[in-house]
Amino acid sequence: MSVRSDVARMTAYTLELRSAEVKLNQNESPFDFPAELKQQVLERVAKRSWNIYPDFEAISLRGAIASSFSPLPATRGEGSGVRGFTPDNILVGNGSNELLAAAIGAFVGPGTPVVFPRPTFTLYEKLVTIAGGLPVPIEFEPDSGLLPLDAMLNAISEYQGAIVIVCSPNNPTGGVLPRGGLEKLLSTGATVLFDRAYGDFANDELPPLDDRLVTFSTFSKAWGLAALRVGWLASTAANCREIRKVKLPYSLNIISEAIAEIALQNREVRDRNVASIISERARVYEALRAIPRITVFPTAANFITFRTERPLFEELCARGILVRDVSAYPRLAKCLRVSIGSREQNDRFLDAMGDLT
Amino acid sequence: MSVRSDVARMTAYTLELRSAEVKLNQNESPFDFPAELKQQVLERVAKRSWNIYPDFEAISLRGAIASSFSPLPATRGEGSGVRGFTPDNILVGNGSNELLAAAIGAFVGPGTPVVFPRPTFTLYEKLVTIAGGLPVPIEFEPDSGLLPLDAMLNAISEYQGAIVIVCSPNNPTGGVLPRGGLEKLLSTGATVLFDRAYGDFANDELPPLDDRLVTFSTFSKAWGLAALRVGWLASTAANCREIRKVKLPYSLNIISEAIAEIALQNREVRDRNVASIISERARVYEALRAIPRITVFPTAANFITFRTERPLFEELCARGILVRDVSAYPRLAKCLRVSIGSREQNDRFLDAMGDLT
Repeated sequence: MSVRSDVARMTAYTLELRSAEVKLNQNESPFDFPAELKQQVLERVAKRSWNIYPDFEAISLRGAIASSFSPLPATRGEGSGVRGFTPDNILVGNGSNELLAAAIGAFVGPGTPVVFPRPTFTLYEKLVTIAGGLPVPIEFEPDSGLLPLDAMLNAISEYQGAIVIVCSPNNPTGGVLPRGGLEKLLSTGATVLFDRAYGDFANDELPPLDDRLVTFSTFSKAWGLAALRVGWLASTAANCREIRKVKLPYSLNIISEAIAEIALQNREVRDRNVASIISERARVYEALRAIPRITVFPTAANFITFRTERPLFEELCARGILVRDVSAYPRLAKCLRVSIGSREQNDRFLDAMGDLT
Repeated sequence: MSVRSDVARMTAYTLELRSAEVKLNQNESPFDFPAELKQQVLERVAKRSWNIYPDFEAISLRGAIASSFSPLPATRGEGSGVRGFTPDNILVGNGSNELLAAAIGAFVGPGTPVVFPRPTFTLYEKLVTIAGGLPVPIEFEPDSGLLPLDAMLNAISEYQGAIVIVCSPNNPTGGVLPRGGLEKLLSTGATVLFDRAYGDFANDELPPLDDRLVTFSTFSKAWGLAALRVGWLASTAANCREIRKVKLPYSLNIISEAIAEIALQNREVRDRNVASIISERARVYEALRAIPRITVFPTAANFITFRTERPLFEELCARGILVRDVSAYPRLAKCLRVSIGSREQNDRFLDAMGDLT
């Protein structure tokens, strides 16, 4: 074997496979796609030729996304004065992970410093390592619910040519950038890869187009389509052209494309589900806060991370509740992450927590 | 913008979008998936929860592939004495492209020399460049139908630690490695990434497991499922573990997984289609050879590449026949590549060629 030595040293991204009655470990939506919409998708797909490659440009879905979402107005650069997106501002991929990998491939070469908060989604550091970049993690305490903006700004000025990756709301802590944080990061001149996977639950707006900014969005969380793997990114047309060079062609199959289009045409389903998750989040958050000897971190995502005095993961499992054990992350010793589920799932979780504490 | 300079210099993988009555430009199968099997897939998928991530390990499809395919018996190493694959020998991905990218990420670091024949599938060189490797293309004339084994062996001995990528039958020339070629490449001790995308049309067997060998297969060509994006690789369990570290998680959605499983359960569909394509290939090959002033390259794939005296691409388009203009590849000046279609499509193509020559 002649595997790269840095790859040999890496650990695999793994997920312990457990089944449980109440599955709250992957930040999935508790709401399945409505049966009548599934039927629409399947009828459309049955008519297509399965032996023919998907549209090389995914032009139909990129157009649907461009017309469904509007960034805030830009004040400078390519997007200034433009009210919305064109399809040239959008790339679609097999989950936003694929697009993150492509963007990191386009911006991060051997030795490129990449600044990101830690703890965060572990895939970023892995992709930076594969690209040969220099990870510059900025460790922070999750208790305040805020990402470490000042420390990130310091690191950017220290590391010439740094790229920034930030997920806000952040996985797995739930915290966000302080108000105006994204603008401050961009004002350094650094390129910012901004992961909005959980942005729908924070009611955030899409930031203006900026030639230093790439935003990543997904249909897996708020849109409830984790099984189908559709993500998209938005940036200037020039950035999209460069990232597209690194992205594999034909990464989205015809079925995922059809599903995303039909989901966009039925946006009220997503809005209703997001409203329900946000309301349940408030209820679960308050209930957890009322439990003695638990530290609950502020969250703007569809999950809540909390620290307990003694390990509870296995005992929750034994009661049929599967949460994510995030205690191996830096600064998250003794922490668990629970996704916001349906009212019934959340009740089951809270009941078990009440029993155990 | 702070895009990597080597990426900025790259050209995008593009495909001119044209529509035509007779589409023979992407080596697609002319046979759609049978309607009753589509229905089986869609019924299975409708019952699944679309809000839940696919199985992290894709264990069901990996098991189905492991039991559907058998490598030739190994004579040494991990696989010796073993008759078939286990799921640990298989990784599945969103098209074999994704797995090629992961394997190149695992084996090719900054400066790693990578030997491959040229002309070949352009994605290899692009992925090597993104990984920071040193492309070592071995140019060859496609006329003989053989890949340049001796020149590759020389290059391997010249470049210490070289990785080899070879596609046999080769896209876009149709030629193959000389008999025993893969064994000779492996005997150098180099790691070989062997793309079998067109292997089904050459009636080749899966080579034995070898800790220096990774083979890549796809459902897009012989299995006629280009729209769905499913590929797989086979290697030793140790290699699969390393490549899996570089591969993105959840790259295969639940629908593609269901389709591949149902395709495997109905292998006679694939066998019938492959037999028909091989028989049509012989007919089209002979008919092209009978046309004066055309050089037709020997082929073991589901396409035929040929050189004409004057450009014919646009004139074929004007007659509703879309082929691939491969004349910009090294050593393929004035060449076109035509996919083997249905009998009717092939007749339309041959009629147009007869008119034009």
